[in-house]
Amino acid sequence: MSRKNLIVGQSGGPTAVINSSLYGVVSEGMRHPEAIEHVYGMINGIEGFLNGTVLDFAEALPGEKLDGLKVTPGAYLGSCRYKLPESLEDPVYPRLFKKFEEMNIGWFFYIGGNDSMDTVSKLSRYAAQTGSDIRILGEPKTIDNDLIHTDHTPGFGSAARYVASTVREITIDANVYEKKSVTIIEIMGRHAGWLTAASALARKYTGDNPLLIYLPETAFDQEEFLKAVEKSFEKNCNVIVCVSEGIHDDKGTFICEYDNSVGTDTFGHKMLAGCGKYLENLVRNRLGVKARSVELNVSQRCSASMMSATDQQEAIKAGEFGVQAALNGETGKMISFIRKETSDGTYIMECGLEDVNAICNEEKTVPSEWITEDGSDVTEAFINYARPLIQGTVQIPCGEDGLPAFVYRK
Amino acid sequence: MSRKNLIVGQSGGPTAVINSSLYGVVSEGMRHPEAIEHVYGMINGIEGFLNGTVLDFAEALPGEKLDGLKVTPGAYLGSCRYKLPESLEDPVYPRLFKKFEEMNIGWFFYIGGNDSMDTVSKLSRYAAQTGSDIRILGEPKTIDNDLIHTDHTPGFGSAARYVASTVREITIDANVYEKKSVTIIEIMGRHAGWLTAASALARKYTGDNPLLIYLPETAFDQEEFLKAVEKSFEKNCNVIVCVSEGIHDDKGTFICEYDNSVGTDTFGHKMLAGCGKYLENLVRNRLGVKARSVELNVSQRCSASMMSATDQQEAIKAGEFGVQAALNGETGKMISFIRKETSDGTYIMECGLEDVNAICNEEKTVPSEWITEDGSDVTEAFINYARPLIQGTVQIPCGEDGLPAFVYRK
Repeated sequence: MSRKNLIVGQSGGPTAVINSSLYGVVSEGMRHPEAIEHVYGMINGIEGFLNGTVLDFAEALPGEKLDGLKVTPGAYLGSCRYKLPESLEDPVYPRLFKKFEEMNIGWFFYIGGNDSMDTVSKLSRYAAQTGSDIRILGEPKTIDNDLIHTDHTPGFGSAARYVASTVREITIDANVYEKKSVTIIEIMGRHAGWLTAASALARKYTGDNPLLIYLPETAFDQEEFLKAVEKSFEKNCNVIVCVSEGIHDDKGTFICEYDNSVGTDTFGHKMLAGCGKYLENLVRNRLGVKARSVELNVSQRCSASMMSATDQQEAIKAGEFGVQAALNGETGKMISFIRKETSDGTYIMECGLEDVNAICNEEKTVPSEWITEDGSDVTEAFINYARPLIQGTVQIPCGEDGLPAFVYRK
Repeated sequence: MSRKNLIVGQSGGPTAVINSSLYGVVSEGMRHPEAIEHVYGMINGIEGFLNGTVLDFAEALPGEKLDGLKVTPGAYLGSCRYKLPESLEDPVYPRLFKKFEEMNIGWFFYIGGNDSMDTVSKLSRYAAQTGSDIRILGEPKTIDNDLIHTDHTPGFGSAARYVASTVREITIDANVYEKKSVTIIEIMGRHAGWLTAASALARKYTGDNPLLIYLPETAFDQEEFLKAVEKSFEKNCNVIVCVSEGIHDDKGTFICEYDNSVGTDTFGHKMLAGCGKYLENLVRNRLGVKARSVELNVSQRCSASMMSATDQQEAIKAGEFGVQAALNGETGKMISFIRKETSDGTYIMECGLEDVNAICNEEKTVPSEWITEDGSDVTEAFINYARPLIQGTVQIPCGEDGLPAFVYRK
């Protein structure tokens, strides 16, 4: 059998471990020189590939340099948000497969979330339709943890650890003073509240902050919220509230655009302030207490400082498993995570394969039984689910400049 | 000579290493049982002390537990923002010194910034006036680095490292896409731009992001800013801009309140959006490019994740040095940092003593010769000043819950 080449790309928003998945694919690919000649990377995903931007990992990150991927956040290969046309009759498909042929591609890997799995689905269906034997597989990635048919996704554990650790530190900051205060922490998650739920991991004991947690899975009632804050002062004079950016009322209106708190700028454009800022003002004005808001923002997805060793190792394992599956002839699949337990209850995770067509464009939200009845907290079952995913510290190497030493494309 | 007791308090906003200063004072105090009987801590500063809230470190953090302070951000003892009356005739002074006498206090330490040094100044002047032999010393602390008569302050190095590291990670995040974008990062510092200047440390090579840096030491011109952003696109399609929260125009108006971009909420109250949000909108509307803003917020002062080992060790050293100075009879002084170099140019730091009366209520800003002429960057001299302060990684111990294990008061 003549050798073929493997190509891998990254797509969608970055995470702390999307490069660990890449490491898994590339390093495993290089372990099979009998079948795989070159391991290529698409720069800026399928969009960049169409423009011909490709690198060879043997040249870009030779030898031990490849290890740098394991501790570098963000997408080393760059990313894109490019949706392939719905119709497989579109001329982009033969164009793509002609390029695959020219580059002697035998294996195609795409690391990403829902939209990226849509790309994997379309390419694998086109391959089947045209009798192409290219193996096309998806590697899961998203801090949002919203992919179905997998216990969780690489990227979630590190983001959850970042959220929990930062919420714990902000709690320390708030506790410094004895005056009544409310801190609203706005966490990423438009439709799924997994990451906001992870703020519950910050608690050191039952009844510790964050005292209130609101997910987009339930309707948010402003009056109930104010009552809940008032009640929380009985437990702690400094109340920490964690909210998903996507919280909305029972009519489906996002809280961040609820009323005229949204200013207009000099150009008359609407200025969205975020639900954290809105709730900060609501609390200050209605309850007359000191209030502030913190938007955790992009560091949730791009900080390596709280990388979870479990998350990192699982991302690598998923990458390796995918290459082994492709070499065994699998295609049109996404690598999934299956939770197992040892006899003494220790968490272990196994990789599986799921039909990518069943996964793309679907969204997994936090199950309602993991949210308390009043919608202001998560249950112990969620904690038991999430706690194993944030275990382990990764030592990020430090450069001579005193800062984390990451790897970059030239 | 009969033994006396030492008391220490923390005041003002927390930092990553304010507890390292505390560790230095407490551990050195305990090393002198011939002179010091108990080492006490004021809970919530001088305000808490007036209310009688005090702990004994031998009970609160016995044995090795004390070490936890070195890796715990925030103020372990709690803090306050309490200004002693200007007039030393005020009855609070005899009340305080009566309490000192009742507790057999011989040494009083206060860890804080400008306002805390004001407390040290007043107490030491009152002591001199009344012939009290209590030794009263100030330990410097502020992420703002704005104390005079000291090369830098404990807390700045770790905050600077957090800023530089986070800006580097946000740059990675921005570089993932190839479309033109501007990211505005808003950094703490109302009057002094030290921390914003530290964002320059994030650069991996000359001409790297952040491409523009604006401090409150110079007047900010919105039109010049827009031109500078346009010009920056020649270097990189993803432009990172770092601004101090306190940037203002040549009339002294803060950019964050410059015009009607400030909305009103449902109650008709003004909603300050922050200069980052304002500039994000300005860029989007005037230049028609993708823009976003990130406010680094309280993590700058309360995150332990990027604690600088240099900063931590210096904070401990300042604490120890203060106790030694007090035992030698010094009073009314603040511990200062004096920069030295070895013959091969290696940075070393020595502690000194400065008259606290000359320090309190003064503010050190970034010297104009360290800011480029057009006010959009800092010079190499600043980099050479700041780089040694962010060196060294501190391993924060991890608890069974997968998160940093800090120490807390019961």
